[in-house]
This record gives sequence, C-alpha cells and structure tokens, in this order.
Amino acid sequence: MLRRALHRQLSPQAWREVGLSPVNKVVCALILLASLVAVVETEPTIRRLAPGIFRGMEVIFVMLFAVEYLARVYAAGEDPRYRGIGGRLRYLVTVWALIDLIAILPFFLGFLAQNNAFLLRIFRVLRLLRLSRLGRFSRAWSALAEALSARIHELLLSVGVAGLLLLFSSACLYAVEAADQPEAFGSVPRTLWWSIATLTTVGYGDVTPITALGKFFAGLTAVAGIGIIAMPTGILAAALSDAFQNKQEQ
Amino acid sequence: MLRRALHRQLSPQAWREVGLSPVNKVVCALILLASLVAVVETEPTIRRLAPGIFRGMEVIFVMLFAVEYLARVYAAGEDPRYRGIGGRLRYLVTVWALIDLIAILPFFLGFLAQNNAFLLRIFRVLRLLRLSRLGRFSRAWSALAEALSARIHELLLSVGVAGLLLLFSSACLYAVEAADQPEAFGSVPRTLWWSIATLTTVGYGDVTPITALGKFFAGLTAVAGIGIIAMPTGILAAALSDAFQNKQEQ
Amino acid sequence: MLRRALHRQLSPQAWREVGLSPVNKVVCALILLASLVAVVETEPTIRRLAPGIFRGMEVIFVMLFAVEYLARVYAAGEDPRYRGIGGRLRYLVTVWALIDLIAILPFFLGFLAQNNAFLLRIFRVLRLLRLSRLGRFSRAWSALAEALSARIHELLLSVGVAGLLLLFSSACLYAVEAADQPEAFGSVPRTLWWSIATLTTVGYGDVTPITALGKFFAGLTAVAGIGIIAMPTGILAAALSDAFQNKQEQ
Amino acid sequence: MLRRALHRQLSPQAWREVGLSPVNKVVCALILLASLVAVVETEPTIRRLAPGIFRGMEVIFVMLFAVEYLARVYAAGEDPRYRGIGGRLRYLVTVWALIDLIAILPFFLGFLAQNNAFLLRIFRVLRLLRLSRLGRFSRAWSALAEALSARIHELLLSVGVAGLLLLFSSACLYAVEAADQPEAFGSVPRTLWWSIATLTTVGYGDVTPITALGKFFAGLTAVAGIGIIAMPTGILAAALSDAFQNKQEQ
Repeated sequence: MLRRALHRQLSPQAWREVGLSPVNKVVCALILLASLVAVVETEPTIRRLAPGIFRGMEVIFVMLFAVEYLARVYAAGEDPRYRGIGGRLRYLVTVWALIDLIAILPFFLGFLAQNNAFLLRIFRVLRLLRLSRLGRFSRAWSALAEALSARIHELLLSVGVAGLLLLFSSACLYAVEAADQPEAFGSVPRTLWWSIATLTTVGYGDVTPITALGKFFAGLTAVAGIGIIAMPTGILAAALSDAFQNKQEQ
Repeated sequence: MLRRALHRQLSPQAWREVGLSPVNKVVCALILLASLVAVVETEPTIRRLAPGIFRGMEVIFVMLFAVEYLARVYAAGEDPRYRGIGGRLRYLVTVWALIDLIAILPFFLGFLAQNNAFLLRIFRVLRLLRLSRLGRFSRAWSALAEALSARIHELLLSVGVAGLLLLFSSACLYAVEAADQPEAFGSVPRTLWWSIATLTTVGYGDVTPITALGKFFAGLTAVAGIGIIAMPTGILAAALSDAFQNKQEQ
Repeated sequence: MLRRALHRQLSPQAWREVGLSPVNKVVCALILLASLVAVVETEPTIRRLAPGIFRGMEVIFVMLFAVEYLARVYAAGEDPRYRGIGGRLRYLVTVWALIDLIAILPFFLGFLAQNNAFLLRIFRVLRLLRLSRLGRFSRAWSALAEALSARIHELLLSVGVAGLLLLFSSACLYAVEAADQPEAFGSVPRTLWWSIATLTTVGYGDVTPITALGKFFAGLTAVAGIGIIAMPTGILAAALSDAFQNKQEQ
Repeated sequence: MLRRALHRQLSPQAWREVGLSPVNKVVCALILLASLVAVVETEPTIRRLAPGIFRGMEVIFVMLFAVEYLARVYAAGEDPRYRGIGGRLRYLVTVWALIDLIAILPFFLGFLAQNNAFLLRIFRVLRLLRLSRLGRFSRAWSALAEALSARIHELLLSVGVAGLLLLFSSACLYAVEAADQPEAFGSVPRTLWWSIATLTTVGYGDVTPITALGKFFAGLTAVAGIGIIAMPTGILAAALSDAFQNKQEQ
C-alpha cells in the first residue's frame, strides 16, 4: 500500500493528473535550492560570513536526497521490470537512477577534492531534466525532439560545414598572422580560439589580426559566421514548423 | 453629452474609426515628448545650459497628464462596469489606471530622490503600450500574442535549457580559471558575467579565459550560444507561421 | 528611330528579353567601377602614388554618366507620360532621374568640400538598386517586398518593443552606473551607446558596467538582445514562407 | 574481378547498401587523422617534442593516399565514361580526381615552402565533402541544395543589400571619424574592418568611434546588422520549409 502510494508520487509516469505530483514538486524545489546554495557558496566573500551554515545545509540536502533515493529504489518494485532483488539491481544501473545517485555521492566521497565535489553538486541540476519531461512540458519536449530527430542529418551537416569553415579560417589566419603575432596565431590550435570567437560572432577582441591580409580573411570569416548562425536556425525553424503541424493533425 | 464625447475620444475601444482618436494621438505625442525631455535632461552638459526650461516643461507635462487622468476617471462612468463612486474606485485600481497615475505621481511626490523620480518618468513610456494595442497595430499584437501563447511551453523550455547551459558553463570556467583569475572567475556568480556575455554572443571581451582548458570550455560555450539563439528564433518563426495562417483562414 | 532604340536599351521596362539590356549592363559595370575608384581613392597611401590618375578617371566617369543622363532624358519621350518639353520636366523630377542627376552633380559643383563630394559619389551606387529591380532579380525583389509589406505592422511593433527595451536598459544602467563611470554612463544619451551595442549583441567592450547591480541589468539586456534578434527574424521567416507559397500558387 | 570489387568499394555510387563502403570509411578516418596531425603539427611546443614522428606520419599518409589514388584511377575503368587510356585521362581532370591529387601532391613537391605545403595538406579535408554526399547525408545535402538553388536570387539580393549597407556605413564613419582616428578610420578601405565587425555583430572593440556623430552612425550600423542576420536566416528558413515539404510529398 505504502509502496503503491510512493510509486504514484515518485514515478512521473504513474501520476495520472496534469502536472507533477506534490512530492516531485517538492523534489524540484529542493534541487533548485541545493543548486543555488552550491553556486552561492563558491563566492568567497559570502562563504566567509557563514561557513557553518553552508556545510549544514549540504548535510540536510544530502540526507533528503538519500531518503528520496532509497524511496525510489523501494517504489521501483511496483514496476514489473524492476521486481525483486534482481529487478532492483537492474533499476540501480538505469541512467536516471545513476544521475540520482550522483546527487548524493559527492557528500559520502569526502576524500574528493573540493572542486570535484562542487562539479558533482552542480550536476544535480540535471535531475530537473527528467522531471521536466513530465507534466505540462512533455508536449513541448516531444515537439522539439521530433523536430531535432527528423532533421538530425541536416543539422549535423551544418555542424560539419561549420567545422570545415573553422578549420580553413584558422589555417588562413595562421598562415598570414603567425609571423606578426606568434603568441595568438603561432599555430592552428592557437588560432582556433580567435576563429571560434569570430565564427560564432562572439568577438571578444582580445586577439585580432593586424595585417591587411589577416583582416581580409577575418572579414570573410565574420561573414561566414552569419551563415553559421543562419543555417541551423533556418533548419530548426523549418523542422519545428513541420513538427507543430504534425501535432495539430493528430 | 460631454462625458460621452470624452469617452469616445479617450477610451480606445470606444473609437469606431480606423486608428487612434485625435485626442489619443495628442496624448501619444505628449508621452513621447515627455520621455524625450526626461532622457535629454539627464545629460549634465545640456541641463546646465537651461535648468529652468526643463523644470518648466516637466510642470506643463504633469499638468496635462493630470487633466487627462481626471478626464479619464470622469469618462470611465460611460462604461457600465465603472458607473458611480464605487465603479470609479474599481476603475482607479485597474492596471492601466495605475500606470496612468504613475505618470503624474513623481512630480507630486517631490520628496523622492532625483534618480527614483527619473525612473518613474521614464516609466511613462509604458503608456504607449496600451495605446498601441489599438488602431492599426491591434492585429499585429494579437498575431504575436497568439504565437507566443501557443508555443509558450517550447519557449520556456528553451529558456530552461539556456539556464542549464549558463550554469554548467559558469561551473566549468570557475573550476578551471578560478586559480588564475580570482577577480573575474573566483566564484560561480562572478563567472556568470562572462558566461552570459558569451552565451548571448555579445562577447565584451573585458574578461576572457587564459588557460588552455578554459579556452576549450569557452569555445564550447560560444558554440552553444548559437543554439541559444537558434532555438527561440526557430520556435518563434514556426509559431508565427502558424499564427499568420490561422488569421488568413478566418 | 534612334530614340526608340535608346529607349529600348536604357529603359529597363522596355527590354523584353530576360536580364538587362547590353547598355544597362555597361552602365552597371561603370557604376561599380566608379564606386570602387571613389572608395580606393580615400586611402592616402594610394592617392599619393597617383593623384592625377584618380582625378582623370573621375572626369571620364562623370562625362559618361552625363552622356547617359542626357540620353535618358531624350529617350524618355518614347513614354507617353514624358512626351514634349513639359513631359521632360516631369521626368526630371522623378525619383530615379534625381538619383541619376546626383551621380554627375558632385563634379560640376566643384565648390563643395571634398568630404561632401565623396559622399555624393558613393551615393551613385544607389543607382544599382534601380537596375537590379529588373532582370533576374525582379521576382526576388517582389517576393521580399510582398513579405515586408504584408507584415510591416508586426515588424514595426518589434522595432517599437526594441526601442522600449533600449530606453529602459539605458535608464537602468544610468541609474546604477552613473556614479561610478560618469564618462560612459553619466546620462541616458551616453548610456545609449552601451545599450545599443549590447542589445544588438555587437558587444564592443569599450564600455562595460562595473557594479554588481549594473552587471545584473546588463545580463538582462544581453538576454533581451536575443529576443531583439529572434523577433524580426521569426516574423521575416514566416512572412517569406507565405510570400513564396503565394508565388507558387499563382 | 579485382577491378569490380575495387570499384564497388571506392566509387560511392557503386555501393548499393546504406552508408559508406568499408574502404571509404577507412579513407574518411585517414583524412580526418591526417588533417588532425597537420593541425597539431603547427604548434611549435608539440613539434619540438617529436619532430621525426610527424614527418614519419606524413610519409605514411601520403603513401596510403597515393595507393588509394592509383586504385581509384584503375577502378575508374568500370565506368563506361572512363574506359581505356583516353577515358582515364578524362577521369584525371575531373574535379574530384584533382582534389584527390592535391591530397598527395604537397609531399612530392618538396621544394614548396612549408606554409604552402601546410595549406595544401589542410585542403585534403575537402575530400570529406565528396564522401559525405553519399550515404546517410545524401538526402540532407539534396534538401539543402534544393533550398539554396530555389532561393538563390533572394539570397544574392540580401548579400547585395548587405554590401550596400557595408559601403554606406564605411563611408559615413570615414566622413565623421577620419579626422579624429586617422589610423583606423583614415580611408574607406580601413573603415571596412570596423564596418564588417559591426554589421556581422562580431564587435571586436579594437576600433570604435569616439565622436558623437560617429557613435550615432555606428548605432544605426549595429541595428542594420540585425537585418543582415535576419534576412538570410528568414529566407533560408522559408526555403528549407518548402524543400522539406516537397521531399515529403514525393
């Protein structure tokens, strides 16, 4: 009886009403709060003010996530695939159960360096992706997924063309600028930093060509950057247009 | 008789012809002029030339807006919902009446600091939004609103994905750059400034990673920035395409 | 007989075959060449090499354009609207005849400053727009014009929303940054320079906020910049999609 | 028998199954590996570690590509067009055979400068384009090609409009900024560097206008840059939408 109630509350598919179950809403809020605390804690001026509080909050979050994790493993038995000891073991190695595990591991693996523990704690926020697939956003997810998978080859092709442009742009700039700016353009891998900033139209400006020929190729690269943005945007727009119409016809 | 004429002139819905009523056109021009004056007045070199003139213009604008405000309250009686004293009180707390009130309040609340008064005066320009919903732009507004509301979940999802990317990008850069540039990358909140400039492809360049690993993650962030632009653009394009076709079929 | 032949060659509408007439092709090439010379001539290091050559080329271009101008006025008589002396005068004040006149005027108005003459010579390139409306690009022009005119209100609305965002962003940054950076953020008009560079995602980085609150509002502005790009792109994509389908159905 | 087997393995059209033939997959991997080595080799700190290894790898790559080239020439005889000695000569001057030749030439032309040899080695990566046209990406290629060719005039028109904007923007900035910043804005060709960085919204910030009028025109240029991105993106989106629908109807 308890297991069925837990299963209904925890398993997103088992909740028949619109939206997330109350327990999952609380879990979502906890994940957001724990991520926010992990982010804020990195600021030295804040950590210095109250070092004990952050440690205490982390203990509470981990305990809550551990309880939730055990409850999920217990409730998984409701699903015919994960019944019994063997079923539970199969459940433990599913992608989502592993991501849930990552959310609590960093605390118990105290011997990890602070930085690595920090990254794992930020990783927790990925659990939101699983919960967002349910409820009101499920249709939006499926429309996006349908559009992406229907035009995956066109998108990969535009990624490939972008990669070629990146390579040629770097090679040209290296060829003409290496002599004048060996630090920034002294090799193709170094030039990639400039190329990627230009092709994505980010344009930091920390490194810019100074020779006339370098500026000429840089101008071509900047113009090609428009294509780099226009291609995937156009493909996505057309694919989403198709996906939305398919949904309406169903 | 006067109230009916006022109502026809002031209330956008009561004007049957195409476009705005003459009085509302004058009000639009006044709002634009008052906003322009408020903007120009902030420039010290100009304010020094003629300090009295700006003060005088502000007095005139506020008096005109106050008269308009009282006329609107009076004319609201034509609407069955706002008849009588109680109806007028209900009218006073509608969103648009409050925005109209904000346009005149800063002057009477002389004890406010100059900066706050300035922001409230800029706030006046929001009144244009109400008037633009009428007349020739009403169809454009409804097409945009229809497209946005039909695909609000897809748009929110792309905002959520953008937020996750922002978080992971900041966490990675913090992890690899904090030791070398503690001022700019010394905590995740500090790194957010760099991340948001990169993901939106703004790329100020006041802060850039200097380690090889930092540049690698920065490159990934810049490429992800293309997706951040392409996703909402594609969704909007597809949604607007649907909205325009729906309008035509009606 | 000569007038008819001239008219067929010069007037784009009178040429029945596909593409431009031979004479108009030569005129196009001349306009491109004259513009290129005007551009290259501004470079001091090149002008110093051969000052006489550039002056000589300009004399030749102006003489050719003057002959072409007179030929167009003469040939305009083939058109019933521009027959006789009065008709020719009416022709002289049409938009395109005035643009043609601008192409030759700077030379004869030798008393103009060098800079102004330069701008008028660059202005010549606008004549290409007229010629491009014919021939193979005429269908492309009409599709773009149809798309733009069908959705002009939506596009103007997105321009208006962009203007409001520009104003609010400048006002917020002025309010929080003026004290720390009076040179760059000391007034709303000054702050506009930063705002426009951020909202268009150009992001020069010559001016950036330094206070925490300023960076927060700057981040919001950068995110709004994505909307500023996505809105007109989405509207254009949807409008062009409609326009292309209308063309196909005809 | 050998020739037929070789032809089936090497000629993309002769492979009936889905995807690339095993031999072509190996060739693809070799091209990627050779390009990667050519890129990494340019980094002085890496080249210094193991100068002999890179030279040795290049010898191996060229030998493998030479064997592949000879095999392709031999196998071309299976195709009726390239039968016999005369047919083989015709095959040798096809575009793809020339690109294949370029992949091995730089090695045998040892008297070429290092930089030129480097560019030719990077050029090898173009061979991937030929192989990507087959297999799973062939439909994506044809959809993109159809969309581009159907709307080539609209795209060229937007390129032309972009060119005009680039010219006018440079001319304006030159006119107002030349006196204050002769190094960066001293001629129209010099100003192009700034213009192209602004119109493409790259915005390095190494060169920015400092006069009020210069900033005004720069703001207009930045806003025009949004149109420069929105136009081709909108055209591509609409054209791809049409192309995808045509594919589905077939």
